[in-house]
Amino acid sequence: MEALKERIVADGVAIGTEIVKVDSFLNHQIDVELLDEIGREFARRFEGCQVSKILTVEASGIAIACMAAIHFGNIPVLFAKKTSPNTMTEEFYGAEVKSFTKGTTSVVRVSKKYLSPDDRVLILDDFLAHGEAAVGMAELVSQAGAELVGIGAVIEKQFQGGGQRLREKGCRVESLAVIESIRDGKIKFL
Amino acid sequence: MEALKERIVADGVAIGTEIVKVDSFLNHQIDVELLDEIGREFARRFEGCQVSKILTVEASGIAIACMAAIHFGNIPVLFAKKTSPNTMTEEFYGAEVKSFTKGTTSVVRVSKKYLSPDDRVLILDDFLAHGEAAVGMAELVSQAGAELVGIGAVIEKQFQGGGQRLREKGCRVESLAVIESIRDGKIKFL
Repeated sequence: MEALKERIVADGVAIGTEIVKVDSFLNHQIDVELLDEIGREFARRFEGCQVSKILTVEASGIAIACMAAIHFGNIPVLFAKKTSPNTMTEEFYGAEVKSFTKGTTSVVRVSKKYLSPDDRVLILDDFLAHGEAAVGMAELVSQAGAELVGIGAVIEKQFQGGGQRLREKGCRVESLAVIESIRDGKIKFL
Repeated sequence: MEALKERIVADGVAIGTEIVKVDSFLNHQIDVELLDEIGREFARRFEGCQVSKILTVEASGIAIACMAAIHFGNIPVLFAKKTSPNTMTEEFYGAEVKSFTKGTTSVVRVSKKYLSPDDRVLILDDFLAHGEAAVGMAELVSQAGAELVGIGAVIEKQFQGGGQRLREKGCRVESLAVIESIRDGKIKFL
């Protein structure tokens, strides 16, 4: 997606060889007009897949999932929680997710009420890096007996291997901007 | 907002005298069509206020803020973070927020880059209960020297006093559904 790549080059900040900071438009401050375009592009790529629900994980994925859901005909969004709120009284599906950047492991949860074997689920998130979050969410879909239609990432950091890992498992992965490397403050796209 | 109240009655679950669970459409699973209506209503109520930015806090507020931002002419959304990510390297504004439901205190943060004295800020969130999150966000706006236009809540639990506290401070507060009490599984609106 050219407009996205241009925006990453213009406003993204490369840090070291691992991190590209996009908090001016994607995951702290949010440009809803760009997100609308991103949502439209996901809907175009997964057209005809009869997606019934979009699954994401708090927090940054929520904006992307909601803006995309509009373009899928106002289908429901479900966001997995990283903490167990005291209002989550019923049973849930849970999967462990390691965070390479934070060095922590957390459990992502969704209430069993909101994922069923009838669902055709698209997983969306801001980044696809090592793939831990996506694998965790795919595990939730699997526990529910629902169908995983695919995984969409706004930015894939190819060099961290998550995309390859998921594709090798047979998942359809669509990334709107794929970064091959980050070096000397420069972002190289695939 | 009648459609919202009807939805709370139909799908909300009253727990004890303090909690109304709306995770089937607002803060776990999300009905984007309803959120679009909610966004339109906030835009109607704050019409002519020249809002330049919507401020919310992760995670549940993000969907509401983004869907509303569209109706304010695609203005930017900024969501305060509850944890300090390793990519938040620059200076930030921070305010303490107590959570009555979780019994914890956390610091909400926004990067100094994204709030400026030129901004006219609308704070949006899913719930207004004791008002701690809203007061914390108002503190961030104040630290930045920006103008607080008002505070919008999808659901105000009037009996927990946050709305009154903010109105007494001179804040304009707009809540789309105001709950007077929760008793015997029944939700009574103002």
